[in-house]
This record gives sequence, structure tokens and C-alpha cells, in this order.
Amino acid sequence: MTVLGVDCGGTNIKMALVKNNGDIAERALEPVNFRRPAARAIADIAGRILKFKSRMGLSRIPKIGMGIAGEVDSARGLVRFSPNLGWKNVPLKALLAKKLKSSIHIENDANCAAWGAFCLDSKRDCNNLICLTLGTGVGGGIILNKKLYTGSTGSAGEIGHMTIQHDGRRCGCGNRGCLESLVGAWGLIQTAKEGLRRGRAPILKKMLKEEKLSPKLIEAAARKNEPFSKKIWADAGECLGAALSNLANIFNPDRVVLCGGVSKAGSLLLKPALQALQMRAFETPVKAMKVTVSKYDEKLGVVGAALLTLE
Amino acid sequence: MTVLGVDCGGTNIKMALVKNNGDIAERALEPVNFRRPAARAIADIAGRILKFKSRMGLSRIPKIGMGIAGEVDSARGLVRFSPNLGWKNVPLKALLAKKLKSSIHIENDANCAAWGAFCLDSKRDCNNLICLTLGTGVGGGIILNKKLYTGSTGSAGEIGHMTIQHDGRRCGCGNRGCLESLVGAWGLIQTAKEGLRRGRAPILKKMLKEEKLSPKLIEAAARKNEPFSKKIWADAGECLGAALSNLANIFNPDRVVLCGGVSKAGSLLLKPALQALQMRAFETPVKAMKVTVSKYDEKLGVVGAALLTLE
Repeated sequence: MTVLGVDCGGTNIKMALVKNNGDIAERALEPVNFRRPAARAIADIAGRILKFKSRMGLSRIPKIGMGIAGEVDSARGLVRFSPNLGWKNVPLKALLAKKLKSSIHIENDANCAAWGAFCLDSKRDCNNLICLTLGTGVGGGIILNKKLYTGSTGSAGEIGHMTIQHDGRRCGCGNRGCLESLVGAWGLIQTAKEGLRRGRAPILKKMLKEEKLSPKLIEAAARKNEPFSKKIWADAGECLGAALSNLANIFNPDRVVLCGGVSKAGSLLLKPALQALQMRAFETPVKAMKVTVSKYDEKLGVVGAALLTLE
Repeated sequence: MTVLGVDCGGTNIKMALVKNNGDIAERALEPVNFRRPAARAIADIAGRILKFKSRMGLSRIPKIGMGIAGEVDSARGLVRFSPNLGWKNVPLKALLAKKLKSSIHIENDANCAAWGAFCLDSKRDCNNLICLTLGTGVGGGIILNKKLYTGSTGSAGEIGHMTIQHDGRRCGCGNRGCLESLVGAWGLIQTAKEGLRRGRAPILKKMLKEEKLSPKLIEAAARKNEPFSKKIWADAGECLGAALSNLANIFNPDRVVLCGGVSKAGSLLLKPALQALQMRAFETPVKAMKVTVSKYDEKLGVVGAALLTLE
């Protein structure tokens, strides 16, 4: 049995025919313009899915599992609020179902990634897993007792908006000192901009002539031994470590899986993070908790979205 | 059916015969000296339980549920580490079973309080509940999908050791900026001492001639309108609010129950806490989450310990 997994990004959708063991049979990436009324964007998504179906020579559309950034009410098929897509209270499931004759399940994208990480890598030896998606923002998904935990009204898992510095930097969500504001790509770029303004990042400044500012560029400057850029990663790692320590003390999970672009900075981020985790958290949960960077990063969301429909 | 609930404090044990609806038939408080080798303290506990049994005219000792401060491995009946009692790797269940012919279940005391809060007050209309015990330290217990969540190795729920100020004050656990160090009685007293040293708390200073420094005394000084003492509560409330916001965003629970001595400060603590929660957390989980101060404070631990044996 195969399921169609769909991962809605900000400018495109990722589609994949996913077997129930998590293998991908076929995949595609299609552009979708979300900067227009939701109904029109959704009609476009439906069209892309129909196109994918005919290209694959399928007689009918399989079951669909779809991941969306933002607050999703899965039970009612509603996207309550997605700042990324500019949606508020959009009945995504109903609008899609009108266009496609198929069973559809929608879920928050970080929850999908968590389920993907659990199914692809951890199902056998793991009961409790937390996934952190370190991208422009920071998302989270929580698997407890081998089930996705979504809370009382479906919005649990917003680990990126955990306060770890209660008088800290203002976050996009309105709060101060959120993990996301300190470790997300947006936060890293803000810190770099402050350093550039104060003339503290000459190597990074030089590199900006050829490429625009990104975590990847800050990483490159750090690898060229620029102290300020190295400190950005050390500080971000320390903050990530405080967050990991909170997860250890609160959830005592078997595993924390990191994914997303920022997680690619490797030891620049992970070394200070794991040091802070050791220093901060209780001994028993730290010993029990494996922290890994996912090797399946690109497909976690789409595979998880698909496999959640089988639950 | 009645169960014997036992709550081990630092200087005494609380015992109660608990019916399966949570009602208490009989209760007793007995002093126990924990400042000696664990085996001797446990022999004393067993003696107090036997005395309680004969005083109640029971033919045999009922099933026992026991709550202990510290890290408890319930499955193995082991107290891994209890700084309060000075215990490390104490096989409490086995040592007690030698003295008492009864089935015994041991659990972390804040987990017991959470289960007590759930059973006494919340079972009908609540799936997910978090309990915070605001005493000398800050403990936590997590009920998810109507079950106590204890994590992969039994040490989940240490919400008091959630970092909310990553460069903050050193906590007893070795970490910095833990909720406990900012909102626990010990933390409040430290802040008051700093103010007293700097001559900023004249009303509190005067009150110290008649009573020793405690959250209750800081509360009294605040109610006499001393600005510094009022600020202690406002700051503690703000920190508690940041923690509540983390719980809302991460767990999206139906309810958070506060208990313990510090929770008795009422609106001095709760008003700024609820304001911070509103400001910081996402809208949907805040709307779904009821924050209450338990009216059953004194019996939560002993009732929860007893009723957990029936799970």
C-alpha cells in the first residue's frame, strides 16, 4: 500500500508516493504561490497533485497525508493559523476534498517530521522521541509511548517557542527569549547583522559580496576562524543545550532528533550544545537520551505526513 | 477497598487510609529522622506504619503507595537519588517489604501530587494535566491522556529544573536559571536576603525580629506595601508565567494545578504569572488551559500515592 505524502513549504510543495515501510517510490517538487487567497493556492495544490497522479499513471489518487507549517486542527481539517502561508482558519481538508476524491489527513509539519524520524530510524528501540526542526523557525514534534502527542486541542509541540531567556530578544511570536529567536536561522542572521553593524565580522562582511547572509555563510566565516562568527555558533549551541536540557528533565526521552538547515552546522553547534546539556540536566535522563542529527532530513516531513495517515 | 498512602517529607511521614474514590478514612502524621543511614530510617518508617495499622485495628497492612522527594525508579522500587533525604540508590521497596508483608509501590512525590490533583478534581473533564508543587523546591508531575507520564527511565516531570533564564542564578541542581531557583522558597529567600543586605527592605527587616525569613513573611511585607517585597513577587510571578507559557506551548494541556506553600501567596504571584502567560504563549493553548491553585493541597501527595497503586 502506498500513500501520497505532501509537504507544503512556503514556495513549493514536495510530494512523494510512500510505501508503508517508509520507502519512497516516486517523488516530485512543484512550485506553489501561497501569496494569494487561500482558496486559489489550494486549487493550485490540487492541480499539482492531479498532475503528479497522471504522470505516475495512477488510476486514482491514493490516501493523502499533508504537512503544513503552523497551527493545525487535524480533527477538523482546519489550518487555524499559519504565519508562513498567511492563512487563518482555512478549512484546508474540505477545500482539497472538493477537488480531489481522496481521504486526506492534515498535520503540523514538525509533527510530521517527528513521526518520520520515529518511523524511519527509531521505531524499534525508542518509545519517546522529540524532534526539533531547526530552520528559519524552530519547530517541534513529540512522540510519547510510540504515539504522536498533540495535546488537548492539537497544538502541542511548539518547542521553538519555549522561553529559555525570559528577558531575552523579542521573537516573531510576540514572546521574548524563545529558543527560535536564539537558534533559528532568523535569529542567527539578526545576531550576525548586529556584529556587522558594529564592525566585528570583517570576514563575514567580505563574504557578503558574493553571497547573501545565511546560517551557511556564518558557518563558513566561523570555519575561517572569525571569532565573532564562531561565537554566534557557540552561543546558539549553548542555548540549544539549555533547550535539550529542558527536554531531558521534563520528558526523559530516549531520543532527540535534530533536522533542518541549521542542524547542518555540525560540531560548531552540537559541541557546545552537548556540553551545555551535560552541565545543565540531571544525570539519569542525559544518560538515557541520544541526540542525533537526522540523516533523512529531506524526506522526514513527507514520509511522516504519509505514514501518519496509517495510524 | 482502601489503600495506605504514605508521603515522606524531610522530617516526618504523612499516612492516610484512602478509599478508591480519593476520600480519606483515617490519617496520621509521624516524625521520622532521615538524618541517619537509610536502612535505619526505613526501619523507623516500617515501625510507624505498623503502629498506624494497630491503632486503626486493621487485621493486615493494606496495599501501600509511597511518595518520595527525588529521583525514583518505580519499576525497580529504587530511590536513585534524593538530595532532601540524603539517599543514593536505596532499594526502598525491598527494605520495606522485608519488614511489612504488603504490596508496595513507590513514586516521586510530585508525580503523586499530580495524580492526586487529577483524581480529586479533574478526572472527568481533563485528559492532560500538569501539576507544579511550589515549595522549598519546585516539583512537577505530568498526566497525559489520563495516565502518569514518567519518561523512558522514570525521571520525567522535573519541571522545576526547566531553564527559563539560561545565564541566570545558580540552582541547587548545578544548572543556571532553573524555575526552582527563581520561584521556589529557597530562591525567594535568596532574593530577599540580597535586598536586606542592600538595605532595600526595611519593613521585612523589622518583621525579621519576630519571625524567621520565609515566603510567608515576604508576602506579609508585600501586603504592607513594601516596594522591594512586592517586586520579589512580581518577578517570581513573571518567571512562573514564562514557565506556564512553556507548558502551554509544549504540552497544550487542559489544566495546570499549582500547589505547595509558595502557591498560597495568591494574587501576588498569580496575577503577574497569568499576565505573563497571556503575553507569552500562543492563543489557542492558553484559551484551552485552566490554571488553578489546588484546594486539596495538604492531601494531594498522600491520596495520589495511594491511588497510583490502583493503576
